Amino acid sequence: MRRALELATSPDAPLGPNPRVGAVLLSPDGEAVGEGYHHGAGTPHAEVEALRAAGSRARGATAVVTLEPCNHTGRTGPCSAALLEAGVARVVHAQSDPSPAASGGADHLRAHGVDVVGGVLADEAEALNPYWTHQAVHGRPFVTWKAATTLDGRVAAADGTSRWITGAEARADVHALRASVGAVVVGTGTVLEDDPHLAVRRDAEVLSYDQQPLRVVVGARDIPEGARVLDTSAPTLHLRERDPAHVLGVLQAREIRHVMLEGGPRLVAAFVRAGLVDAVRWYIAPALLGSGPAALGDAGMSTITDALRLQVAGVSLVGGDVRIDARVLRAEEG
Amino acid sequence: MRRALELATSPDAPLGPNPRVGAVLLSPDGEAVGEGYHHGAGTPHAEVEALRAAGSRARGATAVVTLEPCNHTGRTGPCSAALLEAGVARVVHAQSDPSPAASGGADHLRAHGVDVVGGVLADEAEALNPYWTHQAVHGRPFVTWKAATTLDGRVAAADGTSRWITGAEARADVHALRASVGAVVVGTGTVLEDDPHLAVRRDAEVLSYDQQPLRVVVGARDIPEGARVLDTSAPTLHLRERDPAHVLGVLQAREIRHVMLEGGPRLVAAFVRAGLVDAVRWYIAPALLGSGPAALGDAGMSTITDALRLQVAGVSLVGGDVRIDARVLRAEEG
Repeated sequence: MRRALELATSPDAPLGPNPRVGAVLLSPDGEAVGEGYHHGAGTPHAEVEALRAAGSRARGATAVVTLEPCNHTGRTGPCSAALLEAGVARVVHAQSDPSPAASGGADHLRAHGVDVVGGVLADEAEALNPYWTHQAVHGRPFVTWKAATTLDGRVAAADGTSRWITGAEARADVHALRASVGAVVVGTGTVLEDDPHLAVRRDAEVLSYDQQPLRVVVGARDIPEGARVLDTSAPTLHLRERDPAHVLGVLQAREIRHVMLEGGPRLVAAFVRAGLVDAVRWYIAPALLGSGPAALGDAGMSTITDALRLQVAGVSLVGGDVRIDARVLRAEEG
Repeated sequence: MRRALELATSPDAPLGPNPRVGAVLLSPDGEAVGEGYHHGAGTPHAEVEALRAAGSRARGATAVVTLEPCNHTGRTGPCSAALLEAGVARVVHAQSDPSPAASGGADHLRAHGVDVVGGVLADEAEALNPYWTHQAVHGRPFVTWKAATTLDGRVAAADGTSRWITGAEARADVHALRASVGAVVVGTGTVLEDDPHLAVRRDAEVLSYDQQPLRVVVGARDIPEGARVLDTSAPTLHLRERDPAHVLGVLQAREIRHVMLEGGPRLVAAFVRAGLVDAVRWYIAPALLGSGPAALGDAGMSTITDALRLQVAGVSLVGGDVRIDARVLRAEEG
């Protein structure tokens, strides 16, 4: 299984809509007769790649896979059927498939006489695909709200100026986060006020792979011609409807697993109110303003016990600024 | 000098209005013939203690002292005269005396034929007494503003409730800070709204020494009878005048070197406006409120370039909360 986990994180295993998965086929005497990993949406699943490598030696073999073999036909056929057809005798998997559409692979294999063991190093396998797992369980993308404020909680000065609150290193760090998500969401208000670009800077050394997020602008107002968000550097989607659940539904249908919320106080308040913020990435500049807007508008919390509580996952210095990563605590997670 | 620095930080060298100082007397052949350190206001200075220990062996000796010997008569006589009288031949000191009243010791000694070398490990000696040094240079106490907010910068919810934004560990940490300062300052508004106690908890294991800060309430309004700040656990001073420079002048006259500002948004804004905040101790609870007051009120900064910039000196997790220590950047410090 260690080898399968290693395969799943191969350098060219792209981050995209599909999970990262690794597979190893072992002959009855323990020899590795085939290996594979998933290379991205539309390409063969890890199991199929390993079966191809093993050829006839797959018969009677044990398949070790980081994710329960899928049981549905998407862009490719079901892996459970492929494993049966190849005559695999035993399947050991880590994470169980959390998606309603694709799960049932283990049961299907068992029903056809294959010995199946699940849950081996499941936590490590799940950690390979946290956002994919989240959307499979919750049926919507994972939402990380990014904010940048002064120590006293201002996102801009009283006159609206905000360039720059944080330093160059923190802003480069934001580009790295943008490069890792499927979509960046703002409201029309932010577009009208700040004219942000929202694409990942091409020149940034932080760009570890060649992916631009979908730029999503929500709200009924028109985006002005010539707005930077409409340039050709990345795709852009304008949703006239700004209800958070609707927005996330549209993005889920587009197989976007991780959304970065960069909106203003009102849009973010709507997401918080709807319980649709999962984590925050907060940059705090060591500066004081004494006036100016806050990051979050009225979200219906009027007394201290109403406060939305999070758990700090990490604190660090980025240049001269403080970065705090925190997860929203939900009742379901204890 | 290492030994002198060590002596200065002896466990019973109390933190108080006076600096921590250590001294070693070396005979011409390099033998330590006397050691001493300052035990607190009203007790002999380190040099005098070392001279007493050395007796007649001080004649022709080298005095190694962490601070330039004083040249004035305060609660005790000038050390420069005592060293001359004992026949010390050479003085090696670290930090030069920054206080206008007491400096000049080195010149006085030189004028009387003593060989004087200054500046040896001066930074380390200065670090022994940062607040004492600050007041000696600036003629006023060092001011640390303590604040506790949510991620979105609220010190209380919209209905005024604020117990508790931060966790028990952060609150205990505040008591440790209070126990280390000479005075805690709030406005009458805070007393009327929150009825804070402001003394150091007796039961807290964080109390490393038996000192209560002076509780200072500033503002024209009366403190209500029965207010917790008036109890007998610590001394309390009510200043009807809330001008920050005046308040610090009163505290400087009381030989208070380090002041902790725990006031509300208006009082703190007055200190910021007057340039009289030197550092912040900021606790950030991983929580969101979306409404409620900010820590700092209007301090006359209306555009981003007006922002008061600080430098982060330390970031850590205290319980589940983030603690940021930062120093205000001043032009004089580059």
